[in-house]
Amino acid sequence: MKLEPSRSLAEIAELIGAKAVGNPNHPISGLNEIHKVEAGDLSFVDHPKYYDKCLNSSATTILINKEVDCPPGKALLISDDPFRDYNFLVDFFMPYQPSERMISPLAAIGEGTHIQPGSFVGNHVVIGRDCLIHPNVTIYDHTIIGDRVVIHAGTVIGADAFYFKRRPEGYDKMRSCGRVVIGDDVEIGAGCTIDRGVTGDTVIGKGTKFDNQIHVGHDTVVGEHCLFAAQVGVAGVAHIEDEVILWGQVGVSKDLTIGKKAVVLAQSGVPKSLDAGETYFGYPVGEARAKMRELAYLKQIPDILERLKALEKQ
Amino acid sequence: MKLEPSRSLAEIAELIGAKAVGNPNHPISGLNEIHKVEAGDLSFVDHPKYYDKCLNSSATTILINKEVDCPPGKALLISDDPFRDYNFLVDFFMPYQPSERMISPLAAIGEGTHIQPGSFVGNHVVIGRDCLIHPNVTIYDHTIIGDRVVIHAGTVIGADAFYFKRRPEGYDKMRSCGRVVIGDDVEIGAGCTIDRGVTGDTVIGKGTKFDNQIHVGHDTVVGEHCLFAAQVGVAGVAHIEDEVILWGQVGVSKDLTIGKKAVVLAQSGVPKSLDAGETYFGYPVGEARAKMRELAYLKQIPDILERLKALEKQ
Amino acid sequence: MKLEPSRSLAEIAELIGAKAVGNPNHPISGLNEIHKVEAGDLSFVDHPKYYDKCLNSSATTILINKEVDCPPGKALLISDDPFRDYNFLVDFFMPYQPSERMISPLAAIGEGTHIQPGSFVGNHVVIGRDCLIHPNVTIYDHTIIGDRVVIHAGTVIGADAFYFKRRPEGYDKMRSCGRVVIGDDVEIGAGCTIDRGVTGDTVIGKGTKFDNQIHVGHDTVVGEHCLFAAQVGVAGVAHIEDEVILWGQVGVSKDLTIGKKAVVLAQSGVPKSLDAGETYFGYPVGEARAKMRELAYLKQIPDILERLKALEKQ
Repeated sequence: MKLEPSRSLAEIAELIGAKAVGNPNHPISGLNEIHKVEAGDLSFVDHPKYYDKCLNSSATTILINKEVDCPPGKALLISDDPFRDYNFLVDFFMPYQPSERMISPLAAIGEGTHIQPGSFVGNHVVIGRDCLIHPNVTIYDHTIIGDRVVIHAGTVIGADAFYFKRRPEGYDKMRSCGRVVIGDDVEIGAGCTIDRGVTGDTVIGKGTKFDNQIHVGHDTVVGEHCLFAAQVGVAGVAHIEDEVILWGQVGVSKDLTIGKKAVVLAQSGVPKSLDAGETYFGYPVGEARAKMRELAYLKQIPDILERLKALEKQ
Repeated sequence: MKLEPSRSLAEIAELIGAKAVGNPNHPISGLNEIHKVEAGDLSFVDHPKYYDKCLNSSATTILINKEVDCPPGKALLISDDPFRDYNFLVDFFMPYQPSERMISPLAAIGEGTHIQPGSFVGNHVVIGRDCLIHPNVTIYDHTIIGDRVVIHAGTVIGADAFYFKRRPEGYDKMRSCGRVVIGDDVEIGAGCTIDRGVTGDTVIGKGTKFDNQIHVGHDTVVGEHCLFAAQVGVAGVAHIEDEVILWGQVGVSKDLTIGKKAVVLAQSGVPKSLDAGETYFGYPVGEARAKMRELAYLKQIPDILERLKALEKQ
Repeated sequence: MKLEPSRSLAEIAELIGAKAVGNPNHPISGLNEIHKVEAGDLSFVDHPKYYDKCLNSSATTILINKEVDCPPGKALLISDDPFRDYNFLVDFFMPYQPSERMISPLAAIGEGTHIQPGSFVGNHVVIGRDCLIHPNVTIYDHTIIGDRVVIHAGTVIGADAFYFKRRPEGYDKMRSCGRVVIGDDVEIGAGCTIDRGVTGDTVIGKGTKFDNQIHVGHDTVVGEHCLFAAQVGVAGVAHIEDEVILWGQVGVSKDLTIGKKAVVLAQSGVPKSLDAGETYFGYPVGEARAKMRELAYLKQIPDILERLKALEKQ
């Protein structure tokens, strides 16, 4: 998320009671998770394994639980619990605003767009022109929707990321301050759930079409003109390139890329990146014809056992 | 969909700007996709591969993108883009009517039926007697529901078919003008989605019971007294005969038949038709005991490799 | 369900027209299914296979379709159709109450709890403090929710058990009179469905976190601090112990236990109980490394066939 206007290192240090290392006027113009950082951003790190990655990232302010040397041109905030303090900042700058009406007066809805009864449109939502939002849809705060988008009934856009830190006393939730951004001419079926980004955007590219009961996790980017059949599930931080086709009940893991125009056949499970243009099948997934041949091998085992026995007799 | 009253070839030709071949008074009494046509229907074809099938079907008016000989007793409409023109006709004769109220005044709801708060009932919906529609259900326009039907919360009946034509500039949606028809004594769990037919009906036969989060695609016909466990997905244009049991998370592909009283075990994937009365398992599915034996073979491979090595040593 | 105040054998016998065997004043203080019975309960049995189990259970009143000897200290109700009569009693003592408002005036909602627009809260629901119920959630009657619980949009808590008896004329539904009980600090994603118990409680233990589109069946008990990823499905009467992790699209069958801290990898199918502390994978599931090794064996079959052929030539 962006901070507008930007804040100074000193201000942020005071808010969270952290020790500041650097110019007190050093500007902080955004809060972002390590995967999404750019210059001006504050990011956080609390595990020694990731200290270097975070210190060397584009983030210019690092919230960290160790006294380390400050990289040139950057600033540090030293805290005993960066995760807690980061969450505090998100809550402070983007507090949850309960709604009293089904359609927030703070939403901007384009001309020619129909919102059917029973649908909820949260604060600061922007919906383009000539969209059709069917009944009982829920659109969380800050969602951005393009023109000529159709969303079918019961779908939920912008729920929180499923992102928790294990503490001795239980799971501690990472606050989501990202958005869902839906391109022009997208159609989303009934009963789908698309989570917003933790700090960045979950994106559905223009012209992409979703069938019913599809789940897309936080910070996932789906390209343009993709086709997802019913009950597909895509975890967080996946990157699905343009014109990818996922058939029914396919599951896609996080932190991977599916290349342009790849096709994944029904019920397959995708644990790692897939090349563009190929057709895949299986659990875990492989190139479709090879995978089908593999499954056919199974049927040869009784014959193999017979032949082995015959050889052993000799 | 039916056209009531029927229209003349000349009227339809003028609406879409197509060239008419045949008697200008030739009657057109319905619009239907090639899978569902009967005498009186207009159907369309835009791929040479399917010209003959469409011209020889029961449809008596063919919207086609080639100058062909008109079969006797039929009429042709020649157009550069039959898909576009067909969609135009559907939109023209069955325009989308936004609703202003949760329960349309054009709906007919039987005596003794409870519609719980938060549920949406669209235009021209017919619901029988003694039904219970739990909260936050969405019933799209033109759905037909029998007597003593129970629908649990969050379920969506009658969303559009997932049916798109690839164009160079993106996917072009086929307009759905079919319905969902639900028989007497059906129970549908929470969070289900049942799409309406493209031009015909998606049918759930009487006495059938669905658990939660089930998806049924357009034009699928589910028989009587079937039992579907949670998270089952059935694609479009499938035919599930009476008393079929599908266990949890089963996926069923399109354009196939599952025979009467067949049972499909949990998580199985059904890519093609299944015989009546058998029990099936696996991905892709096979007769259950044979399939379980196949999976057991896998465990024998280390032993096979040992024995091979021993033979090779000799 | 409890009967408060308790009723006498004679009263119940008259209600259902059954023959009473035992002291007419013998007290009946609850109605419960055989899996959940305790002293004071009435339970029913209609299949000879289960007569002994029911007669010897903790239930002190047995509704049965055979004249049998009455165990000491108990009472019998003899009926031609115990299932029908049991359902009658559930309907009689816990009749369905339609709601006229989105939030029942009979619900108790704690301080600091936000119910967002479009959500339904049924009769006798109890929700603790500082909860956040997002839009378009449905909470059926009698649900109990702890403190600091978050429920995302479109989720359905407390729909009926999927539990039917096959009759010659079709499926006959077992009436659900149990509840859903959700512990403190639970978070439930969007589009989930959690069914209530048939006669007991479906429980989600404190601190447990659910992603989106998760299904949990009736009478299932999920422990504390579990993590379920999106599209997981758990059937009825399962017992998931504390700190279990289920990854995306996992399916869990009924009547089993998953031991503490077990981890089940994505898309796996769990047909029977799993030990604590292990990691599992596959369909059907096995210990993860062993299962992955098994899948790798498949690739060795072409080599095995080559070597067999070579040996046979000699």
